[in-house]
Amino acid sequence: TSEIAKLDPTDYVGFTFFVGCMAMMAASAFFFLSLSQFDKKWRTSVLVSGLITFIAAVHYFYMRDYWTSFQESPTFFRYVDWVLTVPLMCVEFYLILKVVGATKTLLWKMIIFSLIMLVTGYFGEAVFPGQAALWGFISGLAYFYIVYEIWLGSAKKLATTAGGDILKSHKILCWFVLVGWAIYPLGYMLGTDGWYTSILGSGSVDVAYNIADAINKIGFGLVIYALAVKSQKA
Amino acid sequence: TSEIAKLDPTDYVGFTFFVGCMAMMAASAFFFLSLSQFDKKWRTSVLVSGLITFIAAVHYFYMRDYWTSFQESPTFFRYVDWVLTVPLMCVEFYLILKVVGATKTLLWKMIIFSLIMLVTGYFGEAVFPGQAALWGFISGLAYFYIVYEIWLGSAKKLATTAGGDILKSHKILCWFVLVGWAIYPLGYMLGTDGWYTSILGSGSVDVAYNIADAINKIGFGLVIYALAVKSQKA
Ligand SMILES: CC1=C(/C=C/C(C)=C/C=C/C(C)=C/C=O)C(C)(C)CCC1
Ligand SMILES: CC1=C(/C=C/C(C)=C/C=C/C(C)=C/C=O)C(C)(C)CCC1
Repeated sequence: TSEIAKLDPTDYVGFTFFVGCMAMMAASAFFFLSLSQFDKKWRTSVLVSGLITFIAAVHYFYMRDYWTSFQESPTFFRYVDWVLTVPLMCVEFYLILKVVGATKTLLWKMIIFSLIMLVTGYFGEAVFPGQAALWGFISGLAYFYIVYEIWLGSAKKLATTAGGDILKSHKILCWFVLVGWAIYPLGYMLGTDGWYTSILGSGSVDVAYNIADAINKIGFGLVIYALAVKSQKA
Repeated sequence: TSEIAKLDPTDYVGFTFFVGCMAMMAASAFFFLSLSQFDKKWRTSVLVSGLITFIAAVHYFYMRDYWTSFQESPTFFRYVDWVLTVPLMCVEFYLILKVVGATKTLLWKMIIFSLIMLVTGYFGEAVFPGQAALWGFISGLAYFYIVYEIWLGSAKKLATTAGGDILKSHKILCWFVLVGWAIYPLGYMLGTDGWYTSILGSGSVDVAYNIADAINKIGFGLVIYALAVKSQKA
């Protein structure tokens, strides 16, 4: 048997897995190799951006192979990835607001809510698909708490205190969470049997998740990167 | 046959192996890539933190695959990992106390007792499971000697002499050893046949060990990292 699989040219889901995998690898190389150009204060944030895409790159390798082998959603690996990368995105919010006094309490609150969001989402998607609506609802509540915290809660206040480029970047990241992250619950609904699978076919959930991941992981990291570049000049 | 395994979505033990594996990889990347920001005095400590998580990352790869293939505790690899990482954690205690005159004798004493703890623990867990209580008891004695040494013995005295951030970090590390390490003997008891396996099912020992490893290896490393960051500023 050969090492490399023969792919169907119309396997668009597989195509996005391959593109996603390499995009994450390239983004990691970009973030890691640019580290030395920043001063210490910003290096940690850019390093964490790199960790997020690096973790994703590894899981995209698994997911890509899983998809090519079984033509099935690699939900397990998807959530292993998210359980690590979403908390790290909370760390990014914390890191850029640390200069104006963000507390560990804020960080832990965001991490805990993001874990609630993911664990309940996993239950609805993989363990109790019959109760997808219920689990999705609980997950959504936790998601909205995070949205609230950064748009209107204490994270917002800290960003306003900081002002300038930090405030601007915080705002962009807030939009990522409100719009970019909202693709995931859409994907979840597309993937729930009997909701829309008849219209779009299975696999559409993966296309949605793959696009969302590229936007959120790489885009999010680039916002941090741009902030670091700007602060360097000032 | 395919390279990638099909995982049962309710295989939570497997889930913690996958998360653990990637968390250790990411932590290693974090410690290694942050090295250049520290001055020489602190670089060795952070480097050792990275070695601990890196060694763990490799063994988590083995353990993960072992678990997916056999649905059995990878006790062999577990102890191969510990036999390397636990002595390195003793080295961390030594390194931060070296500035105030920690001796190699202290280091060797801690290493030897940690090896006694692990070798006897391995006998009880893998070689003579019928005498799990006896071997666990001897292992526990060695464990308590280490606890004594850092909480009340000569390591404690050195930390007090050092004072300041070093004392504070030493104290946090002491708590890791007293509380975080205590999860391992709990896991040992959960895994011993006929003690609690009937209640929790096998595999629970691995969940306990995986959580403990994440706390102790990554958390421990982050304490050292934070100490290095603080000393940098001062
Ligand atoms: C609200 C909601 C969900 C939200 C998921 C999100 C918001 C995931 C974000 C992932 C990110 C940002 C990964 C990139 O690094 C689920 C779990 C699909 C379940 C349905 C309800
Ligand atoms: C006391 C005791 C044990 C203690 C194990 C410990 C304390 C392991 C620590 C491992 C670490 C810290 C690894 C992380 O790097 C055993 C061997 C389970 C056997 C039962 C009695």
